[in-house]
Amino acid sequence: MNQKEMTGNRNSWDNLLADFPQGPLSRYRKKASFNWKEMAVFVDGEDIIQLKNRIFSALENDPLFAHHPGEDLCREKNQELTFLRCKRLFEYEFLSQQEMMENPLRLFNMVLCIGMYDWSLCLKFFLHSGTFAASIMSASKRLAHILKQVFSMEIFGCFALTELSHGSNTKGLRTTATFDPSTQEFVINTPDFEAAKFWVGNMGKHATHAVLYAQLYTPNGQCQGLHPFIVQIRDTKTLLPMPGVMVGDIGKKLGLNGLDNGFAMFHNVRIPKENILNIAGDVTAEGKYSSSIKEAKERFSAALGSLSSGRIVITGLSTTNLKLALAIAIRFSAARCQFGPTEDEEIPVLEYQTQQWRLLPYLAATYALDYFSKSLFGNFIEFFAGVLTKQRSQRQADLGREIHALSAASKSLASWTAQQAAQECREACGGHGYLAMSRLGEIRNDNDPNCTYEGDNNVLLQQTSNYLMSWMNCIRDKAPFESPLGTINFLQDYHHILGWKFTAISVEDCMDSSVPLAAYKWLVCYLLRESDMKMNKEKQAGQSDFEAKNNCQVYYCRSLALAFIEHTALQRYHDYSHDASVPAALQPVLRDLSALYGLWSLSKHLAVLYQGGYASGEQPGKFIQDAILKLCYRLKDDAVALVDVFAPSDFILNSTIGKASGELYKNMWGEILQGNKALNRPSWWAEFCMNKPVIGRLRSRL
Amino acid sequence: MNQKEMTGNRNSWDNLLADFPQGPLSRYRKKASFNWKEMAVFVDGEDIIQLKNRIFSALENDPLFAHHPGEDLCREKNQELTFLRCKRLFEYEFLSQQEMMENPLRLFNMVLCIGMYDWSLCLKFFLHSGTFAASIMSASKRLAHILKQVFSMEIFGCFALTELSHGSNTKGLRTTATFDPSTQEFVINTPDFEAAKFWVGNMGKHATHAVLYAQLYTPNGQCQGLHPFIVQIRDTKTLLPMPGVMVGDIGKKLGLNGLDNGFAMFHNVRIPKENILNIAGDVTAEGKYSSSIKEAKERFSAALGSLSSGRIVITGLSTTNLKLALAIAIRFSAARCQFGPTEDEEIPVLEYQTQQWRLLPYLAATYALDYFSKSLFGNFIEFFAGVLTKQRSQRQADLGREIHALSAASKSLASWTAQQAAQECREACGGHGYLAMSRLGEIRNDNDPNCTYEGDNNVLLQQTSNYLMSWMNCIRDKAPFESPLGTINFLQDYHHILGWKFTAISVEDCMDSSVPLAAYKWLVCYLLRESDMKMNKEKQAGQSDFEAKNNCQVYYCRSLALAFIEHTALQRYHDYSHDASVPAALQPVLRDLSALYGLWSLSKHLAVLYQGGYASGEQPGKFIQDAILKLCYRLKDDAVALVDVFAPSDFILNSTIGKASGELYKNMWGEILQGNKALNRPSWWAEFCMNKPVIGRLRSRL
Repeated sequence: MNQKEMTGNRNSWDNLLADFPQGPLSRYRKKASFNWKEMAVFVDGEDIIQLKNRIFSALENDPLFAHHPGEDLCREKNQELTFLRCKRLFEYEFLSQQEMMENPLRLFNMVLCIGMYDWSLCLKFFLHSGTFAASIMSASKRLAHILKQVFSMEIFGCFALTELSHGSNTKGLRTTATFDPSTQEFVINTPDFEAAKFWVGNMGKHATHAVLYAQLYTPNGQCQGLHPFIVQIRDTKTLLPMPGVMVGDIGKKLGLNGLDNGFAMFHNVRIPKENILNIAGDVTAEGKYSSSIKEAKERFSAALGSLSSGRIVITGLSTTNLKLALAIAIRFSAARCQFGPTEDEEIPVLEYQTQQWRLLPYLAATYALDYFSKSLFGNFIEFFAGVLTKQRSQRQADLGREIHALSAASKSLASWTAQQAAQECREACGGHGYLAMSRLGEIRNDNDPNCTYEGDNNVLLQQTSNYLMSWMNCIRDKAPFESPLGTINFLQDYHHILGWKFTAISVEDCMDSSVPLAAYKWLVCYLLRESDMKMNKEKQAGQSDFEAKNNCQVYYCRSLALAFIEHTALQRYHDYSHDASVPAALQPVLRDLSALYGLWSLSKHLAVLYQGGYASGEQPGKFIQDAILKLCYRLKDDAVALVDVFAPSDFILNSTIGKASGELYKNMWGEILQGNKALNRPSWWAEFCMNKPVIGRLRSRL
Repeated sequence: MNQKEMTGNRNSWDNLLADFPQGPLSRYRKKASFNWKEMAVFVDGEDIIQLKNRIFSALENDPLFAHHPGEDLCREKNQELTFLRCKRLFEYEFLSQQEMMENPLRLFNMVLCIGMYDWSLCLKFFLHSGTFAASIMSASKRLAHILKQVFSMEIFGCFALTELSHGSNTKGLRTTATFDPSTQEFVINTPDFEAAKFWVGNMGKHATHAVLYAQLYTPNGQCQGLHPFIVQIRDTKTLLPMPGVMVGDIGKKLGLNGLDNGFAMFHNVRIPKENILNIAGDVTAEGKYSSSIKEAKERFSAALGSLSSGRIVITGLSTTNLKLALAIAIRFSAARCQFGPTEDEEIPVLEYQTQQWRLLPYLAATYALDYFSKSLFGNFIEFFAGVLTKQRSQRQADLGREIHALSAASKSLASWTAQQAAQECREACGGHGYLAMSRLGEIRNDNDPNCTYEGDNNVLLQQTSNYLMSWMNCIRDKAPFESPLGTINFLQDYHHILGWKFTAISVEDCMDSSVPLAAYKWLVCYLLRESDMKMNKEKQAGQSDFEAKNNCQVYYCRSLALAFIEHTALQRYHDYSHDASVPAALQPVLRDLSALYGLWSLSKHLAVLYQGGYASGEQPGKFIQDAILKLCYRLKDDAVALVDVFAPSDFILNSTIGKASGELYKNMWGEILQGNKALNRPSWWAEFCMNKPVIGRLRSRL
């Protein structure tokens, strides 16, 4: 790049991204090895940054989105406010259909931007205009009129799959839809309260329509399996329940209390025949079942693919929580001073090795997983284009399976990483991290369900290990194989890789992500072999398939799935950070992040590396540990700039201890004194001053 | 024991402990290998069980303590209710002074029982009648009149140590108390708002008096260091702030919102000379400083010992949270069915290996840490008796140091274990664990500060590693040494132990806690040697003591302190569970718990065992992992009975999904329909039905 282009870029970065105020964090910002604006443009691109700016400033300038520091918002008010804000999003219409189609990453980023402001709002909006709308869209065109009502908010949707007694086991769902040919209607029934639809977002207070999953019964009394139907649950003019529907709110949750999760029971609720979402199956007027997709396998892979979208979005939501938590904790650590080399001098807690080691690996994870979630979203878009154009190729089916395996594990990896990071960040900010105004509690509480919904993480990991185990036949037969995205292609060298050893001979040797990457390749092969052997052993011992699979999870299939997804995320980030197109000024820091993420993730598997003979002696462990600490030390002066790259505006971040200025104590006082009656005498003062207890008065009652 | 005694016992157990209702959990209860009542009596003793019963039923029968399912209690109401309940505790006076003196474990258990009901209430009560009162008690008798007012609740106390900008670094505290000989008063001042007292429990709304730590300045302008003073902050007749005091509430927290944490700033607030708590130092009428304890070292160990009490109590609080979380998650897992070997048959999720592995090690930890916290409390009582009788022996000083080292690490171990368990239990209960009515969120949020207050866990662990490193001279010199409680005595064999290897030759071999115990002994010696070498290397490289110490934490001193405390807890539980006095019927399960706790804790250090050459080859790792899974499998049928032993009554446990009956779904529906307006149309229905958004109306504003 010549000097002129350089200057041109600098100007455009400055128009795009404002400088931060001078303050306690300036010291670190000056020490950064790179220009944070250059990094932001490299990571996100100007188009996405402009979109973010547009969304963030619209919310900041609109009083409806104002925060209420120190106020106690009761759940009902919180739900109302979330609804009103959701409605307002329709008025902003941040992206037109055209803009989304041009670049689907815009949609992904819009969802995450709204989530950075508030996850309840984001989910309410997305469940209606994403999940609910997409379900209708993927069915036949005869429901176009409903879709129009979705986008004009004439109706409001929810997605009703899980029941009180069945979540993960969808086959066990018991709501029924019985076709009545005499009226050409389906009759919806809930057999008992354990089969009530439960946990459904938006259903608690105001959804008018549900995409409802029920066991389809044809008039011959046969169950045709689970199918989705459109069912109206509330009157659009009054919001009162429709006849035969008992619908309500499931109550307070650990977080996301702006979102109204609900339950519903149905008693002979009749819906027109057209309301079946005939993606996979339908009935004729006479009540004969027919399926539009003939091949069971094809039907299965189509279904798998669409399940992936939710999990990829959750990978993104979790990564966004990593960004929020790390921005807060790193800025706090750079501003908070405690102890020092002399009595008079205190140093920022970020200078302590322990603090660096607690936070900087999560910072590296944020960069690696951010890239990973975006690349997965790109993969999904490719797959979804195939779905929309009704591709029936083998490649499309293989892509569906691969994306399913990736999304199941990426969702687990990202949600757990974010959950652990939120806890570590909370603790790393000490007592002040325990104040609600830090927002770290909200982040932890709102991230928590990411570990559970769209499939419990531990259960989902089985999907990934099943996929990996399915290649064992090819491996054993030494038959050539590859997958559309290439994530399992290295398994072709399985027998060779199993002979690899840890070969680095110094700490310096380990400071590139190629070292953990090679170790991960061995690890995946080793765990695959061990899992396969364990499974065969269980079966030979007479266990049923069900039992054998259950007994191969801990230390085997579960570890395998995690190692595989960590390998995939690291491989992609390694390739990205080592690509020739990376601006020279950004290369060193990006490579350090890649190395740190790789080594730190790998260090959790260190025992297995030893156990399986990949490593031996004292050196491998020490090299890896020393390299982690060295990388942390190297990155600590870049840490503030690295969070500046992805932190949203102060208004959106909404953390008193994480503001860009770093004026920790001034900001805290400002907030505390805004607090509801912070300085007031309590209303119940007389209960202390006048009504004194008679000590031991009630002892005789015991 | 003959048959008659046996029957006698059974009768007395039955009078003491009521049977559980028949229901879905009966199946597991019948399968238990032991009588849960026998276990309860063995673990706690009849006296403590009676105390628990007394407290639990008093609270259950008093409407003031009623729960408010589904109600949204705002923070002010929550604080008021907590205060009223605290006052009521004075009226119950569950324990007289006499009863506490007879058996101090009663006091420990009373605090934990109240905490099981509500941690805010427990802390409010304990900060006043424990921490505040004990500070006054330990000073001279001239403050006896104040003490009387404490116990009659004429005044209400708080303990004001930390400031906004200083927590861990107490030397950096900046509140001043300057002696004015002309009026025989101390003048209290807060230099600036960063030095405001902050985080002080009970200070936010209603404490009238504080034990306030300030830098004592004598009239010659010299600072004599930090000393405690009694300062009145609010008028007892009006609860209005005293002149010169600005006092208020620091705002909402992640949890414990019934407790009012506060801040205070002082502007020339004068207190009488007598209000210094002259434990360590005092001033004469002329303003000359004098210390009652001559030896600096002795003064130090006296101070250390009293810091331990808080940390030992927190060890107990955390262990109690383990009990609550495990009771909920195990009962849920035994009642919740999902998937099964055939389409028609679903099995309890507790039957799955993964679920067992997620929960049962924490159950084992609960038993081990419960015993450990009680034994530590016993050690502390011995030490405190020495303090009260003004023991000046070397043993007393050594005991103070040892208990300090133990309590600093036990608090860290227990609080982290509970925090991780709360998260794991939440996830293990799936979506239903995310409902507020599960109480798992409250447990996680209320346990969280245990990781932070009375010293951040990572900082506290340094106290323990410092203590261990202090023995290196003796070890190097091969001089004989021992500690009063014997926790470091095995280090005498340091050189010998470093030569040990993992010797088990089968999985069965590993199923006793003696195997992890031996490995822990090696581990502590190894980490001690490595930490010592690392420290010397850092110093030789020219690092200051401050830097050298900081750079030896991660992978060295921090690991050392954790391994040491895990070893100590395991050693005590191993001895306890292998003692000849254990009733024969309880021995197998107690030993399994001990083995599982030991192996599972050890498995986190497996890489170090390999790295240091204690283990090599595939077998040690596999044996340990297989033994963990085998023990989990063995314990799964005992799990429900094991939580029955320590679970409080349903009313106290207050978890809809953790009730003793196991009637999961019935209990949930009961609670949901009690919810505030669960079935009602939202008050803001017209905002959906009438005021429709104009799509894209605000797009032009962007």
